[in-house]
Amino acid sequence: MALIVQKYGGTSVGSVDRIRNVAQRVAKYKAQGHQVVVVVSAMSGETNRLIALAREMQPQPDPRELDVMVSTGEQVTIALLAMALKDLGLKARSYTGWQVPIVTDDAYTKARIEDINDEKIRADLDSGHVVVVAGFQGVDGDNNITTLGRGGSDTTGVALAAALKADECQIYTDVDGVYTTDPRIVPEARRLKTITFEEMLEMASLGSKVLQIRSVEFAGKYKVKLRVLSSFEEEGDGTLITFEEDDNMEQAIISGIAFNRDEAKITIIGVPDKPGIAYQILGPVADANIDVDMIVQNVGHENTTDFTFTVHRNDFSKAMDIVKKIANEIGAREVKGDDKIAKVSIVGVGMRSHVGIARNMFEALSKEGINIQMISTSEIKISVVVEDKYMELAVRILHQAFNLDKAA
Amino acid sequence: MALIVQKYGGTSVGSVDRIRNVAQRVAKYKAQGHQVVVVVSAMSGETNRLIALAREMQPQPDPRELDVMVSTGEQVTIALLAMALKDLGLKARSYTGWQVPIVTDDAYTKARIEDINDEKIRADLDSGHVVVVAGFQGVDGDNNITTLGRGGSDTTGVALAAALKADECQIYTDVDGVYTTDPRIVPEARRLKTITFEEMLEMASLGSKVLQIRSVEFAGKYKVKLRVLSSFEEEGDGTLITFEEDDNMEQAIISGIAFNRDEAKITIIGVPDKPGIAYQILGPVADANIDVDMIVQNVGHENTTDFTFTVHRNDFSKAMDIVKKIANEIGAREVKGDDKIAKVSIVGVGMRSHVGIARNMFEALSKEGINIQMISTSEIKISVVVEDKYMELAVRILHQAFNLDKAA
Repeated sequence: MALIVQKYGGTSVGSVDRIRNVAQRVAKYKAQGHQVVVVVSAMSGETNRLIALAREMQPQPDPRELDVMVSTGEQVTIALLAMALKDLGLKARSYTGWQVPIVTDDAYTKARIEDINDEKIRADLDSGHVVVVAGFQGVDGDNNITTLGRGGSDTTGVALAAALKADECQIYTDVDGVYTTDPRIVPEARRLKTITFEEMLEMASLGSKVLQIRSVEFAGKYKVKLRVLSSFEEEGDGTLITFEEDDNMEQAIISGIAFNRDEAKITIIGVPDKPGIAYQILGPVADANIDVDMIVQNVGHENTTDFTFTVHRNDFSKAMDIVKKIANEIGAREVKGDDKIAKVSIVGVGMRSHVGIARNMFEALSKEGINIQMISTSEIKISVVVEDKYMELAVRILHQAFNLDKAA
Repeated sequence: MALIVQKYGGTSVGSVDRIRNVAQRVAKYKAQGHQVVVVVSAMSGETNRLIALAREMQPQPDPRELDVMVSTGEQVTIALLAMALKDLGLKARSYTGWQVPIVTDDAYTKARIEDINDEKIRADLDSGHVVVVAGFQGVDGDNNITTLGRGGSDTTGVALAAALKADECQIYTDVDGVYTTDPRIVPEARRLKTITFEEMLEMASLGSKVLQIRSVEFAGKYKVKLRVLSSFEEEGDGTLITFEEDDNMEQAIISGIAFNRDEAKITIIGVPDKPGIAYQILGPVADANIDVDMIVQNVGHENTTDFTFTVHRNDFSKAMDIVKKIANEIGAREVKGDDKIAKVSIVGVGMRSHVGIARNMFEALSKEGINIQMISTSEIKISVVVEDKYMELAVRILHQAFNLDKAA
């Protein structure tokens, strides 16, 4: 007998029939003798409907009241799922965030979980109940309703699994696991049986949007065994996210290719090469709540250097305005911006112990005449920025160059 | 400065624009220096939508889970109204039932309020906030969400007014007060400036569906000053419900004419006239959860008597089946049923001290050739059952006979 936490996203609970399917899957696990806690999101479209209604009332909705409103989405789903489970003859009980309680800080719309009291859930599990918990929501110390921000249901699932010391946290989505890359771009893309936590972090932040990144960090911190599965397929083991490099795991050098074209690049040319310049440039950008992804500064020459960084495309024009002002103040020569870029990354813990990965990557790209505009590396990934029209081509040739279509 | 509790029903908060209107009305009261607590229902249609969704999942939805689901309706409205109030520059804070908390028993879908903790609300009022409370919902001693049953938002309003010792509880509806009868049937019907609590009880239970009856009882018990007003008109004082017969109040003998055609009549003929018969007949009916309204038993003759009672039309065939079985057991002669009846009642505290009211009523009906099938009286009302096709006519001639179109 194992204790399993299952999390189902909005698409998986998007209709009464789909919720019934979820109930049947839960019943299967119960029949095998497992204890099951189910975390659910709002039915697909519901959160957006509620946010639109709030914006109709107030263009910038009050955050406390927005959370009161938006949290009703999951509250409806937990009740429906509990009904479906009871309809199958199972004992079931639903919990909102405050009923558990899942205690968070008071940062409305993006709260962080501080504590989970597992007493009631454990008592229910011990008496044979399936426990259904509303994802994405909690309650602060003053009994105000909070939400964890978009995608927070994953975090709820992992946090509950950690609190209950569950044997496994299963995240059900509309894909059946983590792939070597997006199968829509590379039909030969292959599902990974396992992926390390660090690789998953790089894959998620680089645009493989299977799991919300905070939930993966959480799983890493509390060593929760995390598995990604499809809610639309009966069979399949999905992809297991591991936290130790296991000798028995498939030892590919590269696990996958991530990519995204949501970014834009800003370069300041002829920056006086002296200490504190990076802070002077990026401080005001950060103050404007603009997230910066890649930052590249090359060695200087003739007492000046060039400084390049990428931001989300939505922040591009705002960031350009800020940077132009700074460039003037610090006496830089010129500011150039480009929002027609894409980032392509190869990710794999195997590259730690293999030299020449970067060379192979650059060689494959150059053979196709794809110019590399920026390079950034970490222990387990290499990212390049290329002209955005080459993105799909770059992903395909890298997938082939590293033999990702073949199981290791 | 007064403390006012205002309650707005589903139609009054049926859209973003209507909620804005409610906010403006609240702002007007705040500008006059009053403290305001607002109780709101779900937006019109929302509760029905949620119940339909629950029934799609489970034909007889689990009561605990149904309450979890249905209570989201008011939760959305409180957030929207709090946003609207903040948009007008007011301080506002929303409360769900459990946040107040409004503690109820654990009778899901028809819970009764046991206790209201007014500490937080009072603190908010004292710091200048408008407090917005979800109607219709509460929480039981085990932190389960409960609802008070249909129309329960009125009860929430009155209970809050009682707990806060408010100066007035204003119930906003789509009518501008209590009328002498339904203006759709009698165009000359007139709005009453005041009505006594007892009259209101009779009017409500007899089919003038302005206020939920439990809320009126509650107001009577705790001596809450209750006023019915229109949420769609700027001016007007509505109808005040009073609890003492005031010398200064309008001293009409009859305050209004109530009516309903939701009932059916069952007569058992030739019942052996001996003690315990009424119990033998009505016991099984009550056991089947069928509410009985009028009960008439006339003096017997030749050791038998006739026994007649009315039930809701929805329960008619179920009640007939039960009664036929009993009639057989107790050796009664015959059972007759009729669901083509209507009840018409005249109501007024004034009739206590006036003889001849009944005679005037029966005379007016007989002049139009309307046959009276049953009569039942209390201290402040006289009800007759007539063939249902005569209902509107009976209401019109009684309205005229008692001069209800003219202010007293």
